[in-house]
Amino acid sequence: MNLGIIFLSELVGTAMLVLLGCGVVANVALIKTKGYNGGFLMVNIGWGLAVFSGVIVAYNSGAHLNPAVTLGLVANAADGHTHDFVKGIPIDFVSTITYIGAQLIGAILGAVFVWLAYKQHFDEEPDPGNKLGVFSTGPAIRSYAWNLVTEIIGTFVLVFVVIAFGHQNDTSGLAALGALPVALLVIVIGTSLGGPTGYAINPARDLGPRIAHFILPIKGKGPSDWSYSWVPVIGPIIGGLLAGFLAIPLLPLLG
Amino acid sequence: MNLGIIFLSELVGTAMLVLLGCGVVANVALIKTKGYNGGFLMVNIGWGLAVFSGVIVAYNSGAHLNPAVTLGLVANAADGHTHDFVKGIPIDFVSTITYIGAQLIGAILGAVFVWLAYKQHFDEEPDPGNKLGVFSTGPAIRSYAWNLVTEIIGTFVLVFVVIAFGHQNDTSGLAALGALPVALLVIVIGTSLGGPTGYAINPARDLGPRIAHFILPIKGKGPSDWSYSWVPVIGPIIGGLLAGFLAIPLLPLLG
Amino acid sequence: MNLGIIFLSELVGTAMLVLLGCGVVANVALIKTKGYNGGFLMVNIGWGLAVFSGVIVAYNSGAHLNPAVTLGLVANAADGHTHDFVKGIPIDFVSTITYIGAQLIGAILGAVFVWLAYKQHFDEEPDPGNKLGVFSTGPAIRSYAWNLVTEIIGTFVLVFVVIAFGHQNDTSGLAALGALPVALLVIVIGTSLGGPTGYAINPARDLGPRIAHFILPIKGKGPSDWSYSWVPVIGPIIGGLLAGFLAIPLLPLLG
Amino acid sequence: MNLGIIFLSELVGTAMLVLLGCGVVANVALIKTKGYNGGFLMVNIGWGLAVFSGVIVAYNSGAHLNPAVTLGLVANAADGHTHDFVKGIPIDFVSTITYIGAQLIGAILGAVFVWLAYKQHFDEEPDPGNKLGVFSTGPAIRSYAWNLVTEIIGTFVLVFVVIAFGHQNDTSGLAALGALPVALLVIVIGTSLGGPTGYAINPARDLGPRIAHFILPIKGKGPSDWSYSWVPVIGPIIGGLLAGFLAIPLLPLLG
Repeated sequence: MNLGIIFLSELVGTAMLVLLGCGVVANVALIKTKGYNGGFLMVNIGWGLAVFSGVIVAYNSGAHLNPAVTLGLVANAADGHTHDFVKGIPIDFVSTITYIGAQLIGAILGAVFVWLAYKQHFDEEPDPGNKLGVFSTGPAIRSYAWNLVTEIIGTFVLVFVVIAFGHQNDTSGLAALGALPVALLVIVIGTSLGGPTGYAINPARDLGPRIAHFILPIKGKGPSDWSYSWVPVIGPIIGGLLAGFLAIPLLPLLG
Repeated sequence: MNLGIIFLSELVGTAMLVLLGCGVVANVALIKTKGYNGGFLMVNIGWGLAVFSGVIVAYNSGAHLNPAVTLGLVANAADGHTHDFVKGIPIDFVSTITYIGAQLIGAILGAVFVWLAYKQHFDEEPDPGNKLGVFSTGPAIRSYAWNLVTEIIGTFVLVFVVIAFGHQNDTSGLAALGALPVALLVIVIGTSLGGPTGYAINPARDLGPRIAHFILPIKGKGPSDWSYSWVPVIGPIIGGLLAGFLAIPLLPLLG
Repeated sequence: MNLGIIFLSELVGTAMLVLLGCGVVANVALIKTKGYNGGFLMVNIGWGLAVFSGVIVAYNSGAHLNPAVTLGLVANAADGHTHDFVKGIPIDFVSTITYIGAQLIGAILGAVFVWLAYKQHFDEEPDPGNKLGVFSTGPAIRSYAWNLVTEIIGTFVLVFVVIAFGHQNDTSGLAALGALPVALLVIVIGTSLGGPTGYAINPARDLGPRIAHFILPIKGKGPSDWSYSWVPVIGPIIGGLLAGFLAIPLLPLLG
Repeated sequence: MNLGIIFLSELVGTAMLVLLGCGVVANVALIKTKGYNGGFLMVNIGWGLAVFSGVIVAYNSGAHLNPAVTLGLVANAADGHTHDFVKGIPIDFVSTITYIGAQLIGAILGAVFVWLAYKQHFDEEPDPGNKLGVFSTGPAIRSYAWNLVTEIIGTFVLVFVVIAFGHQNDTSGLAALGALPVALLVIVIGTSLGGPTGYAINPARDLGPRIAHFILPIKGKGPSDWSYSWVPVIGPIIGGLLAGFLAIPLLPLLG
């Protein structure tokens, strides 16, 4: 294992995650699609299985696909016992930047493919807000403080339980089904904590597609709402770090 | 293993369960959320996977997360063969109270976090009944006797099948997926027996959040409906005890 | 293993299946329930997980829970190699009757509990057709011949794939998750072949509750539609037998 | 293993896939069915579990059930290491044609059974477009170029991740659950990339039923839309080949 493989693995995995995750939003939100107005549960299931698919193709890097997960594991390494992201990749500044950089670039790429797959529906969609909504999250009721609280809680649940998975028995032998628990977790975070902010819970998933929205020549697009853009970045980072630190004393007791 | 770990494990697990479980109700019931009016199936799936997530983080205590399960196991211990909740924790008065106390406190805590995650939507929701509905169950048609019957039947199914899981082959090696069967069970109890009372099937899940509703400074809240509050406590306890006792003669024959 | 255990196991398992399966129909169809009008997918998922729960508690008898499965296995035994339903229970007339009798009685019992769980909603429901619909299936467009065809195809899929499961690798070690494949199969038969007749695909599941509907003092009930009652009995039996026979030459080649 | 078994296995598996897959569309689209207007998520889940069921009964041939998968594996064999489809069946012209021919014939057969199962609903359905929609996909917004792009992306995801499954740990011991990951993958391709074209992502699944629609004496049917028919054939083939080639350098690094 080397950092080049890590980079490629996280990039492809996050691209897959964003393609399928933002894809379900496109299907539910954009005009004339077959899944138009398909409901929030369909969005939740789509995002959960998008994570499933991303994890499958990013097996070698441990499939973080999310800077909040990477940083949560960095925080969790403060216990002095865990030293590596995966075998041969020590947790340090360079490897952390490699993970996060790959995730961000992968997310941009995934968003480009969503645009291509739904090109005509973007063209015909009259509401610029719906177009942006395919790429990035926005709050149901805007309030930086409370939106931040929601993203922190959601990401805390994600990273805390993901670290807990690692404390369970070995999953070797489960093959592809080993990616199912995190998919189920993402489904429930969506159904249960996604109401106020649309559950970014992943800075790359939100910032990457927002950059894509900003750059791409999308017909009739509006602004990329940069004033909100820091919330789904800072919130998940805080939530991930909190989960990583708290998991040090808690999880050995719990699981 | 000691009672302190049991307490912490059940507290964190039940808090996770209530955060995600009551969270999906908030998403479906409160005004302006992204999942508003998302349907009963979404509530069922959210609650099922809430249990999944709670079980994952409460592995060490056996993840009861429910006084009806704890008391069902106490009743089941009347067979003279089962002596421990988990290794090193004998089934006795002190351990039983430790489980149930942790579950109740965890449920209150989980409800507080739901309120924080959906703070603005609680503030803007005009109907006090919808606010209470996020925390605690209420009957579709009020009748203490028949509501009790429904809760008894629902909890009987829960505890009976949960005990049956223990009679199946060892789940070691399944890791996080070992928490899936109980999630599926909770989904089906919701779809199939949740119609009349909203399936509390767990005294802590109902009483804890009701206490939180009573204490928290929720804007525009109404009464906490204490007159109904005993039904989703007594019903599940009766159902759990019945299942525990009946499982003694039945399950060795069945599974 | 003896026939008494088989009888008890099939009875309890089928009661569980019908309680949860007919329960989801009650939730979706009867007035004032929390799941009212919850959609056909919710019904499909409810029935699938009802089978999951029934299989869990009827492990010892092999969890047929369905005369079409039992008779399909009898037909499949014509290959001269398979001799036992489960270890110690040879396939013969007495054991076959024991399975089917237990399934029918269990189905009646399960239906009684559905009525109790939804008692008030049965009382307030104005349409007698909706009441019967909770218990037994009825065709969307009545035509004995074509309804029969649909039930034959649906049950053929059920029994053929169930027998195929047995040709796959050993499921030991999978514990409770071993009941998941058949649940998924029942979900898809519902989504995909349930449109014309409501997918009885199980004579006990349809006839047992119909008998319960006939006997129980349900307020404002109408006729039990005995003129259609033979279709969801004969259709599944034909489909099950066809699957059992065809699986003899086909499945060793396929799986 | 010989080519006769391969042929039978792929034929029966693809027939099962199309029966259940086109079946859910019939249930949602045709007049008076019980699942009428059941939503796109129900279609997605139905198709996903249709693949699950098809894979179960086509275990011996490796359950391609899709020319795009077969051709993707042919492309993937350009790495010089993989030589066999399954043990004893080398990848060559004759075996490839055997797979694809069986898939096409199986798909036609499956479509015939859908017609039989929903015969009366086809008869009463007034819109010829809905009748064709049960058999074959059509674009939401017609544009050969962009529809092709969508089908290429969708099929790329399918074949790329399916090949990735093979790079994970061995699934032996998982029995029937080994068919679950591909079902989840098909569900998410539907929810997330199915909006513009209805996700054929399988030439046999689209062309076979279209041939059945053309041949069968369906009451009041319209034209079979042959002008579009090449898109869901060529698109998936391009996507599958791309995935197969790209998986050679990428997947050993990723998973």
